[in-house]
Amino acid sequence: MKNLVYFQSGGPTSVINTSFYGVIKEAIKHPESIGGIFGSLYGIEGLLNDNLIDVRQEDEQTIELLKQTPGAILGTTRYKLSEDLNHPDYEKILATLKKHHIGYVLVNGGNDSMDTCHKLSQLMDKVGYDCQVLGIPKTIDNDLANTDHCLGYGSAAKFVVQTLQDVAVDNLVYNKGKVAIVEVMGRNAGWLTAAAALLEGEVKPDRIYLPEDVFDLETFLTEVKAVYDQKKKGLFVVSEGIKWERDLTSVTKDSFGHAQLGGIAYSLADEVKKRFGLSTRPIEFSLMQRAASAHISLVDSKEAIKVSSVAVRKIIKGKTNAMVAIVRVPGTDYKVRYKLHKLKHIANVEHKMSAELIHDVHHDGVMMKAYLRPLIQGSIKYVTKDGIIQRAILKKVKVI
Amino acid sequence: MKNLVYFQSGGPTSVINTSFYGVIKEAIKHPESIGGIFGSLYGIEGLLNDNLIDVRQEDEQTIELLKQTPGAILGTTRYKLSEDLNHPDYEKILATLKKHHIGYVLVNGGNDSMDTCHKLSQLMDKVGYDCQVLGIPKTIDNDLANTDHCLGYGSAAKFVVQTLQDVAVDNLVYNKGKVAIVEVMGRNAGWLTAAAALLEGEVKPDRIYLPEDVFDLETFLTEVKAVYDQKKKGLFVVSEGIKWERDLTSVTKDSFGHAQLGGIAYSLADEVKKRFGLSTRPIEFSLMQRAASAHISLVDSKEAIKVSSVAVRKIIKGKTNAMVAIVRVPGTDYKVRYKLHKLKHIANVEHKMSAELIHDVHHDGVMMKAYLRPLIQGSIKYVTKDGIIQRAILKKVKVI
Repeated sequence: MKNLVYFQSGGPTSVINTSFYGVIKEAIKHPESIGGIFGSLYGIEGLLNDNLIDVRQEDEQTIELLKQTPGAILGTTRYKLSEDLNHPDYEKILATLKKHHIGYVLVNGGNDSMDTCHKLSQLMDKVGYDCQVLGIPKTIDNDLANTDHCLGYGSAAKFVVQTLQDVAVDNLVYNKGKVAIVEVMGRNAGWLTAAAALLEGEVKPDRIYLPEDVFDLETFLTEVKAVYDQKKKGLFVVSEGIKWERDLTSVTKDSFGHAQLGGIAYSLADEVKKRFGLSTRPIEFSLMQRAASAHISLVDSKEAIKVSSVAVRKIIKGKTNAMVAIVRVPGTDYKVRYKLHKLKHIANVEHKMSAELIHDVHHDGVMMKAYLRPLIQGSIKYVTKDGIIQRAILKKVKVI
Repeated sequence: MKNLVYFQSGGPTSVINTSFYGVIKEAIKHPESIGGIFGSLYGIEGLLNDNLIDVRQEDEQTIELLKQTPGAILGTTRYKLSEDLNHPDYEKILATLKKHHIGYVLVNGGNDSMDTCHKLSQLMDKVGYDCQVLGIPKTIDNDLANTDHCLGYGSAAKFVVQTLQDVAVDNLVYNKGKVAIVEVMGRNAGWLTAAAALLEGEVKPDRIYLPEDVFDLETFLTEVKAVYDQKKKGLFVVSEGIKWERDLTSVTKDSFGHAQLGGIAYSLADEVKKRFGLSTRPIEFSLMQRAASAHISLVDSKEAIKVSSVAVRKIIKGKTNAMVAIVRVPGTDYKVRYKLHKLKHIANVEHKMSAELIHDVHHDGVMMKAYLRPLIQGSIKYVTKDGIIQRAILKKVKVI
């Protein structure tokens, strides 16, 4: 009998705790294989510092609330493990695993976290410790390779589409309106920003700027002016990760550095004001896009539970060094299956949008709609208190 | 038989179109008194320019969708009518009213719009034209006098409380986190920002800054530092309307001007970074707080329908120059009644928070919770399409 540890890693999503829920629900069905069910606090840091909690001490009601609690309830980290498996960190991790008789490790995260997952698998091989390691995909950026999509993306995209519609409707109310510039997350891949392509009619954004595009400030300003001259308002959706040519004026060089993510909507709005004197409305979706509990997609939530269930069933069968990938089954109705994919083809790889899809997003969005619409369907049922969606609060009883 | 015109004025809310729905539903019940039901496009501008639509041409399904459509579907304006009733604008307005046999005018708006409403009433008196004028309260700022609260406030406050909880949960995930600074709307009154007082436990904001408070940058920075030193993260909620002492350094004078509303979270985050080098997360709730269709409060929605119904029933009985006010009935259960209140005591008056309530918000928030919680209860039932809340799209058939 071996114990299982689960941890969360990288940026939160609104369904990462749903993945945790799925792990708990499946793990308790296998008392013949899994003894203790532990959570590592602040990702890999919990294994480094022997900081684990006993999930079996949490009550049923709290566990149910995980499905509607954003953030990362166990805490998370961006700590990067050394490439050198002889680094002292690995000894600490092994000590924690051995001390608590842990033989199963589930890592819930994105590209960087799959790197952590991969290194842990290699460590077990190297030292010959009987412990399997599997990854559960998670990122609103949707940029993991070899999976149709990532858990958390559907809900974040649902927020983006819904909120863009709301904001667009609000921006239509004045005869002479504003230049609204909305900033969406996504460091190098435009998947989340491209969700804007799902809007149609009067609320359709005037332009969408992806990180995969070449960004040129002059072109942007010209486009803004042309739209405003015609409509007396405008809606521009910009990824936080837009790139721009290096030969900009010193002013723009100063106000946008390549490394500066977030606040780009404000910087662009300043440029529009400076150049044309137009009234602007910069809007940054900020943490809301990854933490909006009211916008959790039912499909995303169900798939999060299912992926965890697959991960637990595979790991007790001895599978290791892999991530549970989501494969879309071709056909008119949306259907997926789950399979393990080797971590070495996933860790640290960024899956960007194809040139064809980018072209589509800038035109009629037919491909993007076919891809994304199934992922934003339905809403989960919420437990509310005083009008607000209730959040899970764990007891976090330490494993000694 | 007289015709009725309804118009929307000032900033939108997520239930202003629910008020419109309520007007339509009640008006069609009184065929003996009300002939045509018209909507004026872009507020008073529609009466100035003879730009009216025939609401009876809209289909039933579209009218139902008004209850889940944010913005101001007829368009709105901030146009201010002259104090001088001999101004040519009034001739134009009268011409439109007479041309279309309009004898009832319903104005849906806030303080400034109640001024428009008041002037129209005085105009009818002066020229002896048989036309009644009533106001329907609306503002997320909740700063109308002589009403317990304003339509739109409950839904905006529900967004603020829910989204602050989501953001706070997300800001807890890292061991060493960020200084989150969240900016909420409210030019001179802190009602909406004070909604932050409803949060409890780990997600309770560390400090709340209202426009009614004296704001001092040094005090703010000292408070941020103290919180961060203790918790390694922090959540500060700031009204866009915060005031500050004039004797600040030239740097801060330049970065925050009294007139500059919006973007204050970013300016304050810059100050925190400059002074302490801390990692910050400025978040502006922007248009989302007044346009979030997913956060419409059921109580707000129901009251919006009820207030409109009262307005229509009163106006056909000849009532004029008044606004429908909401009166809270004392007692343990939340209950309200509706009564007309004279416009001269409402127009242009700003109802700010009392010193007692401000003190409460900065401490345990008991009074604020008792006041606000009833207003954010329940959710409306939504019609969705492709996972997104469907919005009403009017045909807008012009009245000729």
